[in-house]
Amino acid sequence: MPFVRIAELEIDPTQLDGYRAAVKEEMETSIRVESGVLAIYAVAEKDAPTKLTFFELYADEAAYRAHIASPHFRKYFETTKDMITSRKLIDTVPLQLSAKPQR
Amino acid sequence: MPFVRIAELEIDPTQLDGYRAAVKEEMETSIRVESGVLAIYAVAEKDAPTKLTFFELYADEAAYRAHIASPHFRKYFETTKDMITSRKLIDTVPLQLSAKPQR
Repeated sequence: MPFVRIAELEIDPTQLDGYRAAVKEEMETSIRVESGVLAIYAVAEKDAPTKLTFFELYADEAAYRAHIASPHFRKYFETTKDMITSRKLIDTVPLQLSAKPQR
Repeated sequence: MPFVRIAELEIDPTQLDGYRAAVKEEMETSIRVESGVLAIYAVAEKDAPTKLTFFELYADEAAYRAHIASPHFRKYFETTKDMITSRKLIDTVPLQLSAKPQR
């Protein structure tokens, strides 16, 4: 079973565009260069666009640790730390992960 | 962009095993028989195994509507309705969905 991380972030509304640009770049880079990053999904609440939920699948916990130590994640972290007004990280245990075998 | 649903459920601890069996069957069937169900991920909070989060990707909102009207979902819904003590459905708008192109 992969390692799954859920993160709930709230973004300063005046900096939402800048945050979105920074996180999209970080997500694309992570998927492209890190073999252990399987998927990162970011969604906003429909009625609260500054409330974001991230659902992240890693090959294992070591892949997650490598991800948060990567240069592109550290750059994202420094760029966005003053844009994020609230951050909740949820440790999870997968119950079942069902997906179409390929796109 | 796919349609993304997040659901947060809390399960009666005395019925957790029954719930897990029912939802696993429902998830496997949905992925196998519904072309518009792209992925359903179910995780438990590490320190609270009765608190479940579902992250669900559908081809579009019509695929989600078809899913919740399907016989296997209706069966799951009837089987589990007295096992679920709390249910929160969150409407979302995707910000970015990044995944490896295939497994």
